[in-house]
Amino acid sequence: MTLEKAIEKLNQLERAAYALKHAQDILYVDGDTVAPRQSWKARGEALGYLSELEYQLMVSPETGDVLSEITSRPGEVDEITLRRAEVLKEAYDDMHVLPQEEYTAYAQLTNEASAVWHEAKVRSDFASFAPYLERIIAARRRYAALRNPELPAYDVLLNLYEKGACMADLDPFFRTLREELSPLIAEVAAHPLPTPGFMKKTYPIAQQRDFSDRLMLLQGIDPERCSIGETEHPFTGGPNKWDVRITTHYHEEDVTLSLFSVIHEGGHALYELGIRDDLALTCLGGGSTMGIHESQSRFYENILGRSRAYCTPLLKILKESFPAQMEGVTEEELYRGINLSHPSLIRTEADELTYPLHVMIRYELEKALVAGDLSVQELPGAWNEAYRKYLGVEVPDDRRGVLQDSHWSTGYLGYFPSYALGSAYGVQMLHQMQASFDVWATVAQGNLKPITDWLGQKIHQYGKLKLPRDLLLNAMGGPLDAREYTGYLQKKYRELYQL
Amino acid sequence: MTLEKAIEKLNQLERAAYALKHAQDILYVDGDTVAPRQSWKARGEALGYLSELEYQLMVSPETGDVLSEITSRPGEVDEITLRRAEVLKEAYDDMHVLPQEEYTAYAQLTNEASAVWHEAKVRSDFASFAPYLERIIAARRRYAALRNPELPAYDVLLNLYEKGACMADLDPFFRTLREELSPLIAEVAAHPLPTPGFMKKTYPIAQQRDFSDRLMLLQGIDPERCSIGETEHPFTGGPNKWDVRITTHYHEEDVTLSLFSVIHEGGHALYELGIRDDLALTCLGGGSTMGIHESQSRFYENILGRSRAYCTPLLKILKESFPAQMEGVTEEELYRGINLSHPSLIRTEADELTYPLHVMIRYELEKALVAGDLSVQELPGAWNEAYRKYLGVEVPDDRRGVLQDSHWSTGYLGYFPSYALGSAYGVQMLHQMQASFDVWATVAQGNLKPITDWLGQKIHQYGKLKLPRDLLLNAMGGPLDAREYTGYLQKKYRELYQL
Repeated sequence: MTLEKAIEKLNQLERAAYALKHAQDILYVDGDTVAPRQSWKARGEALGYLSELEYQLMVSPETGDVLSEITSRPGEVDEITLRRAEVLKEAYDDMHVLPQEEYTAYAQLTNEASAVWHEAKVRSDFASFAPYLERIIAARRRYAALRNPELPAYDVLLNLYEKGACMADLDPFFRTLREELSPLIAEVAAHPLPTPGFMKKTYPIAQQRDFSDRLMLLQGIDPERCSIGETEHPFTGGPNKWDVRITTHYHEEDVTLSLFSVIHEGGHALYELGIRDDLALTCLGGGSTMGIHESQSRFYENILGRSRAYCTPLLKILKESFPAQMEGVTEEELYRGINLSHPSLIRTEADELTYPLHVMIRYELEKALVAGDLSVQELPGAWNEAYRKYLGVEVPDDRRGVLQDSHWSTGYLGYFPSYALGSAYGVQMLHQMQASFDVWATVAQGNLKPITDWLGQKIHQYGKLKLPRDLLLNAMGGPLDAREYTGYLQKKYRELYQL
Repeated sequence: MTLEKAIEKLNQLERAAYALKHAQDILYVDGDTVAPRQSWKARGEALGYLSELEYQLMVSPETGDVLSEITSRPGEVDEITLRRAEVLKEAYDDMHVLPQEEYTAYAQLTNEASAVWHEAKVRSDFASFAPYLERIIAARRRYAALRNPELPAYDVLLNLYEKGACMADLDPFFRTLREELSPLIAEVAAHPLPTPGFMKKTYPIAQQRDFSDRLMLLQGIDPERCSIGETEHPFTGGPNKWDVRITTHYHEEDVTLSLFSVIHEGGHALYELGIRDDLALTCLGGGSTMGIHESQSRFYENILGRSRAYCTPLLKILKESFPAQMEGVTEEELYRGINLSHPSLIRTEADELTYPLHVMIRYELEKALVAGDLSVQELPGAWNEAYRKYLGVEVPDDRRGVLQDSHWSTGYLGYFPSYALGSAYGVQMLHQMQASFDVWATVAQGNLKPITDWLGQKIHQYGKLKLPRDLLLNAMGGPLDAREYTGYLQKKYRELYQL
């Protein structure tokens, strides 16, 4: 095959792959937001067929030839074409490693496991989910052994979500978090602050919907390219930079839950919205790794969204949307209210300080599960023991314990570390940003544009064009350093709790 | 090919076609409801690819062989399989008649024409749209000549929307409507009734949204299988009987606009919701002709929805949702308010009595356009003249005249008659239904179930399984009779206006 022909084929492949991805993305978003409840089954059949088409497209011998031809001649093609071929080659290798029957069987297994997990969580019944988790772990081990027999299985899985991550780096990273944060968490828990009155008011959902629009505008999200919906679990979806969807879940009794969901998903959205036009409809037109994606969402949610400076513009729009509930509330009270910290059971509701230990616990457990050092039968006990040891809380049932997250039921073993890595990346980006301009002054003015521009310049614009390690080095100014992250948390919480 | 093999191939073809249709249906609904504004372009590219896939799938020589094999052996296959092959064979013949480039070029032409029409309508600028309409008419003539050179072109186009319809039947049908209704419309216009006070109140959109939910429940629409969204122009979409979507448009100053949109689209929805499970994910899993579909929507909207009997349950839920605006309103006032008739400019806002003449005018004009008896240049003048002659109104500009409907810009020449046919079919179904049970007694009780069950039994359940003429004969008890329809309108409006 000539190089010219290979590039033409690559373009055809991308066009087909893009259309199939677009359709699947919209079917997922629609299915979780406005689709009627009984629509799930036929949607599953349609999605099944589209994913078969995608597999056939990706795994054909011709695709392998095209991608090898281009990636073997790096000097002769432009940067974007080469990188497109490299990224597709990785997807090709990932899919190719399993025969189609096994690929399909795994999709069916996780689909079924997901339904079983939902039911098991409601009934707090780990035993019914256990056999599925065992099969998922076995399947993931087999995939890892085929994909890269030289690496430990868990490292292969980590690489699916965070390119280059490995236990050799994550073990000391999480050890530092544990050693630095565990004592601080206990100290904070021993000196509780009072809950401000606005946290005990009722916030009607119709008003919260209007408030979300204000909040997204404050964050600088273009409403012509990003819309908001409502789902049980908030997420960010949508197929391209002109069509981003975020979702939230409203709780009448607590306005801060949706507030920080919207800012978090808004951070993911700003990443997607900021990708260069010329990458948008190619395989490079999405965020880089999951850790880098989480660095953006958690940067907006916590570093900006829960900062003292953000309380100025935030309180202003809160008072516009909720004049009665927010009457007389001061910025200081708001700052205290949205940063109250106490060890708790549920990761997704945890505060900024205790959150990384929820992740650390999951890292240790899934690593042991994949290595075979912990059996599925022993998992609930190990979970409860870890919560007792590191967070000082007693887990009353598996619903609020080992069954709380969906990740393992969908086969996402190796995903959790991305959340903590993202938080740590974000702190290092903040420090770099502060060397360029006065971050808190611009935040206090309610002007996030210089911040989003800075992140756009360093991260967003590139999509998957740059290698993750280059993106990170460029934005963080150096390698990952757990102590920058723990130092940030120490400073923030010691000041807040006057310790 | 053996028959067994052909049936296996048919099943594979159906599965693929269903998935592609499902994806396209959802992309259209999503695009018109919640998608951000700038998403249209990339969605267009994805839809373009999916429709190419569909074309390739349908027009392959193998598909032709499979469908011929099955349809040529009617005695050897079951009713459903045979009918599936027949319906797909028609789609095959339709697509096959044009080479792929021409098929794609036509899709691009209507896509572009649609955008040009939107803009032209806003600016009331027919001249900018005229060249596109000329090209569309030429393309449709060419399609008709290739599809069936024995028939007049307009008859071929009519058959796309109403199988079996022809000018030989429609000319006398519309003549009867014209002759019977024109004098009645003038008589009614000369004796105007006062507008009740509730028609002049304000109805906040948040309250109207809640009201739509009540209205759909009253109509017997299952919320687990049908959801409601908001669009500029209301429509019914969704891929199958477990996933139906209706939309509406709220106007604060007039609660009846959305009210009757919801009942109308709800009628379409009940048709789709009532299709047999075993047909649902096949090519038989949708409504039969457009005329039969409109018979259902207009039956619920007008015959039931604007009946005296329906005012009893309707007023009850109106008072629940709008206690202030509806205070003291009587059923008689409501009945009068929702049936006020006067000649007007806009088809979609016309009352039940004047509506068929809006359709008649379009029928005469598009028939003449396709035959070449009327040029595109002459069209606006002919439109205005027809409105003056048959409805006695002066058209002030093309926005409220010839540019008001989207149909011609999307190539839907031959579609309009379906609306009037649907209304006429509905009246004949009412008369048949009345022979079985007391329709108005059950309506007055707010119990539409016996009615929907009757229609489900005669029409809905079959999807496309039965031939349209058999469905209609079964539900109407005889052939189309324009005088049953005009008689119904004469009776209703003479009583209402005491003429």
